[in-house]
Amino acid sequence: MKATLILHGGAGSMNNMTEARARRYRRGLRRAAEAGVVLLSAGGSAREAAIASVVAMEDSGVFNAGLGACLNAAGDIELDAAVMDGRDRGFGGIAGVRGVKNPIELAEHVMLDTEHCLLGGAGAADFARELGLPFRSNYPSEARLADWRDKKRTLDSMVGLDSLSERVASLGGALGEDEADPVGRGDTVGCVAMDRDGNLAAAVSTGGIWMKQPGRIGDSPLPGAGIWAVNGEGASVATGTGELILRVLLCREVVERMKSGSDFPCQDGVDLLGSTFGEGSGGVVGIQPGGEPKFAFNTRGMGRAVWRDDDAGVGTAIWPEDDWDYQLEG
Amino acid sequence: MKATLILHGGAGSMNNMTEARARRYRRGLRRAAEAGVVLLSAGGSAREAAIASVVAMEDSGVFNAGLGACLNAAGDIELDAAVMDGRDRGFGGIAGVRGVKNPIELAEHVMLDTEHCLLGGAGAADFARELGLPFRSNYPSEARLADWRDKKRTLDSMVGLDSLSERVASLGGALGEDEADPVGRGDTVGCVAMDRDGNLAAAVSTGGIWMKQPGRIGDSPLPGAGIWAVNGEGASVATGTGELILRVLLCREVVERMKSGSDFPCQDGVDLLGSTFGEGSGGVVGIQPGGEPKFAFNTRGMGRAVWRDDDAGVGTAIWPEDDWDYQLEG
Repeated sequence: MKATLILHGGAGSMNNMTEARARRYRRGLRRAAEAGVVLLSAGGSAREAAIASVVAMEDSGVFNAGLGACLNAAGDIELDAAVMDGRDRGFGGIAGVRGVKNPIELAEHVMLDTEHCLLGGAGAADFARELGLPFRSNYPSEARLADWRDKKRTLDSMVGLDSLSERVASLGGALGEDEADPVGRGDTVGCVAMDRDGNLAAAVSTGGIWMKQPGRIGDSPLPGAGIWAVNGEGASVATGTGELILRVLLCREVVERMKSGSDFPCQDGVDLLGSTFGEGSGGVVGIQPGGEPKFAFNTRGMGRAVWRDDDAGVGTAIWPEDDWDYQLEG
Repeated sequence: MKATLILHGGAGSMNNMTEARARRYRRGLRRAAEAGVVLLSAGGSAREAAIASVVAMEDSGVFNAGLGACLNAAGDIELDAAVMDGRDRGFGGIAGVRGVKNPIELAEHVMLDTEHCLLGGAGAADFARELGLPFRSNYPSEARLADWRDKKRTLDSMVGLDSLSERVASLGGALGEDEADPVGRGDTVGCVAMDRDGNLAAAVSTGGIWMKQPGRIGDSPLPGAGIWAVNGEGASVATGTGELILRVLLCREVVERMKSGSDFPCQDGVDLLGSTFGEGSGGVVGIQPGGEPKFAFNTRGMGRAVWRDDDAGVGTAIWPEDDWDYQLEG
């Protein structure tokens, strides 16, 4: 089989995507893809590749994951991540973890080194310490903390709502499509890879959504919701309105359509949000069982990168009308 | 439509199920069912009924949920619960929460009073405090603490394994089918109800598994895994090997079969564990879109109760060959 890799850096309004930001964003996407590609080219497994690409996005600071993660209503970073291996449906996820440098690596340890599939909160962080995984001293970054202070002022100005949770619940619209931040409120990063043996794997990582209620777990670490991968059926990862994605099991639906040979499995999946709830924004990338990379989104843009094991190298794109851009520097 | 309710108190080996224990167990099942039945009979909603039945099981001390919850490897109680409303796929879940008297009520508040679907750990407990929900001062119960001390001695005797997680991982078999406890290692309680308007709802609650690694989240609060309910399609809840249930999205598979008119949707679902992984024990109860209650399990026993809005009242059963027992006291 030909190896393949496709990833996304989040789907959103991209309201503040200047040319300079777009270049930086595309560079982040390209470098993340290359981190996985170098492994696939050397005969590495789909899971290794998907994780390497997500690690690169966690470390870049450009995306809503790892260093660039958004903050919750209390000003803390709580991270969700998961990996699924299509060979045996192996699943490892972490939810609401603080301080860990690379949540996707902790998720893989949950899969490999415990009898469990999902660890949350303090227990997951303790496990990372036990493993000796690196923690970040620079969480949150100065840039993210400044973003948070702006949003906090909005929160504090919402008088007449008694509790934190009431104020956060009222904040959804205000922090949604209109925020002056290329990272939308419901962003996630994710990668799907197929290796030369035809094995599929998927990996996702996210800071969740800005000003989320502490403890909120989104769709990303939930099997079938934000991630799903089964050899011979397909694999996909999602980004967008997590609370709707998990109520349709979006990635499970996309893979179901891949398995049955649908021409537009990702588009049909994204359309499920609107047809089921009358709302909901998001995007999906995936790989069909035959190796064809696929994507769809219903937001203004979705940063994405693709590689097909040919001379073209890694292609990147942001807007719906974009052809894949294979230039090394845009 | 005729209202219907079916619930289970966990599937397992039932190794130590003496006649006296069986009577107490059936009484717990019957009373839990009646808590939901009284609401359905008065025209209450499926969701209210499913939650009331699960609250009764959380408060009974007989089941692995609420007061009777098993302890994790650190000697703490960490609770998972979720509710799903088939009318709009409304979903509320909590994961890894400590101290809350009725986790299923907190899960409903997540659905109704936040913009989220799932809260974990300390954030979820803080939300319960903010809501003023009752906490238990008697967690864990004396009986459960005594059980834990026995298991801890087994853990401590496992020399040559360095870390807690290594020892816990090695413990699976030892604490599984052989333990002298009617509550198996992978128990959960759950209830599915249909109201007179034909609406479906499902609710689950659990302490997870004995000696689980702190932070472990099982299948129960994960949509499609341990719980799924969609009006017109079906509803089901699962108990058993959570780490396998979530990797096949068992309840989503059962409802898929209900929707397509399978004669044995629950049995086919339970059989998926063996056909996919070559192992895995568990049970499922559910209600078909036409109102027919269904169940299946591949363990030695599964405590269960049913009500069909007729003169027969509530029936209980434990073993595979049991007819429903409608006697008020067994």
